[in-house]
Amino acid sequence: MNIPAIAIHGGSGTITFNPEDSELKKQYLNALNNALAEGFGMLTKGYSARESVCKAVTILEDCDLFNAGKGSVFTAKGRHEMDAAIMDGSTLKAGAVAGLRGVKNPVLVAYDLLLHTPLVMIAGEQAIEYARQKDFKFESDSYFYTQLRHDQWQQLKGNSEMKLDHSGEGAKFGTVGAVAVDADGNVAAATSTGGMTNKTWGRVGDSPLIGAGTYANNKTCAISCTGHGEYFIRGVVAYDVSCLMEYAGMSLKQATDMVIHQKLQKMEGEGGLIAVDPLGNISMPFNTEGMYRGMKNKTDSFTQIL
Amino acid sequence: MNIPAIAIHGGSGTITFNPEDSELKKQYLNALNNALAEGFGMLTKGYSARESVCKAVTILEDCDLFNAGKGSVFTAKGRHEMDAAIMDGSTLKAGAVAGLRGVKNPVLVAYDLLLHTPLVMIAGEQAIEYARQKDFKFESDSYFYTQLRHDQWQQLKGNSEMKLDHSGEGAKFGTVGAVAVDADGNVAAATSTGGMTNKTWGRVGDSPLIGAGTYANNKTCAISCTGHGEYFIRGVVAYDVSCLMEYAGMSLKQATDMVIHQKLQKMEGEGGLIAVDPLGNISMPFNTEGMYRGMKNKTDSFTQIL
Repeated sequence: MNIPAIAIHGGSGTITFNPEDSELKKQYLNALNNALAEGFGMLTKGYSARESVCKAVTILEDCDLFNAGKGSVFTAKGRHEMDAAIMDGSTLKAGAVAGLRGVKNPVLVAYDLLLHTPLVMIAGEQAIEYARQKDFKFESDSYFYTQLRHDQWQQLKGNSEMKLDHSGEGAKFGTVGAVAVDADGNVAAATSTGGMTNKTWGRVGDSPLIGAGTYANNKTCAISCTGHGEYFIRGVVAYDVSCLMEYAGMSLKQATDMVIHQKLQKMEGEGGLIAVDPLGNISMPFNTEGMYRGMKNKTDSFTQIL
Repeated sequence: MNIPAIAIHGGSGTITFNPEDSELKKQYLNALNNALAEGFGMLTKGYSARESVCKAVTILEDCDLFNAGKGSVFTAKGRHEMDAAIMDGSTLKAGAVAGLRGVKNPVLVAYDLLLHTPLVMIAGEQAIEYARQKDFKFESDSYFYTQLRHDQWQQLKGNSEMKLDHSGEGAKFGTVGAVAVDADGNVAAATSTGGMTNKTWGRVGDSPLIGAGTYANNKTCAISCTGHGEYFIRGVVAYDVSCLMEYAGMSLKQATDMVIHQKLQKMEGEGGLIAVDPLGNISMPFNTEGMYRGMKNKTDSFTQIL
């Protein structure tokens, strides 16, 4: 048993910069180390898993290197529409938001739903209204503007308003997430995303869907996913990992490997996930070129891209 | 093996009319029989399970007795916001919509996503825009007005804009759904709902969430749920039934009874579900006073409320 422990991800996919570019690589690893240090710091001070994953995701949302919060991609309309979710494995309580615009930290709104309401999920204009009424911090469009994301959007932007196929996006999936187990053995997971570049029609991906992109249960583990969301929804990927452990008796590693390397692979879905069980075991499989990721417990700590 | 077969529901909960009122009871049973006859008729003519469940749900949406489509409840703002989903167990393809207003048949938009796009889920204003661009039929507010739903809303309407607790709604859950297995042994599920009376903040329930309120997989079964949505989301109820069959080796009846009568009960969640497996076995458990429901295959046919 090696608890507390935390793992985070900053998205999976094709690594868009030259991995030999040590400057940019350093920036990514620094950002991941930052979030890990803060999240793990909270765990060692006795904060709960759910508080710690919320903090780690907030830090990743505030970093414009990742496709969530500040660094969110552009939709087909040139806006930023963000989704997030959080789940507490000790109570099975959850909160989720979809289609937020202007909100600095979508994961905090999701956490507020978990803490203070009987609702699990809210979406769209009225969800934005909720965030305003609850005094969450809003930012202007310029805050969310990054040259890289704007360039990616310009490359994809088509003339057809009915453009629905995101395959042009290739495998550059964003999304950030964190999973943790605290000193009491409670697990939690949180995920936040700006979705897919040039997305249309108010598309909702897997990140805010409990059981698809985010899930936590003290009986099994906590999971946060990243990848081509539609495959993760159809595979109910996060809950699938949990069920393989609970009903088929698999270990965390067996279940996560099965889901990513066999089941997702067979569907030709791309992506990865991070998972932690109540004993502090961590697994971070992916079937893409790379996944920004890291973990930290009392004895180990690392961050990695490829 | 008794295929093809179809089962439908028109919501679970407290039965709000006097069950001795034979006139209203007759109306409900007629409506259910109608949808069953049409859905089963398609199956016997060789249509697929997914086409047949879509048809059955469309008929229930068009009947103002049920909380979906025409008979949808009023939100806190006095509007009608509808969610729907459909999943094909032979391909694991799915479509889902949330927060549609004015669309006559939300399930048809969900089915369109399944058939013609790589997307699984869309929500809110842009989803409405999608339905308009694709020429789906829209209706005016008067079409969706029913005296009963308006009265229910007036009873719940509070002065507080921040009213979040839907518990006042008691156990009068609406929602309609259908599950079927066709002559080829393919299963499918579809669900459609107007959500909860007086709902706020763009609340999304379980109906449009793949794995929560709707799921289908030829390996196991097809499921459509009805009840207090938040518990069905947190329990990932529909996929849980599937996993108990696939990983724990349970029969359809064992898995559905376990999920509704043990797991949901333990969470103090209220509701029910309908499920069919590829052999044509049907299960329709609920833990509320009643559930509008029915089934039909070559040898059996019934509709029931209590």
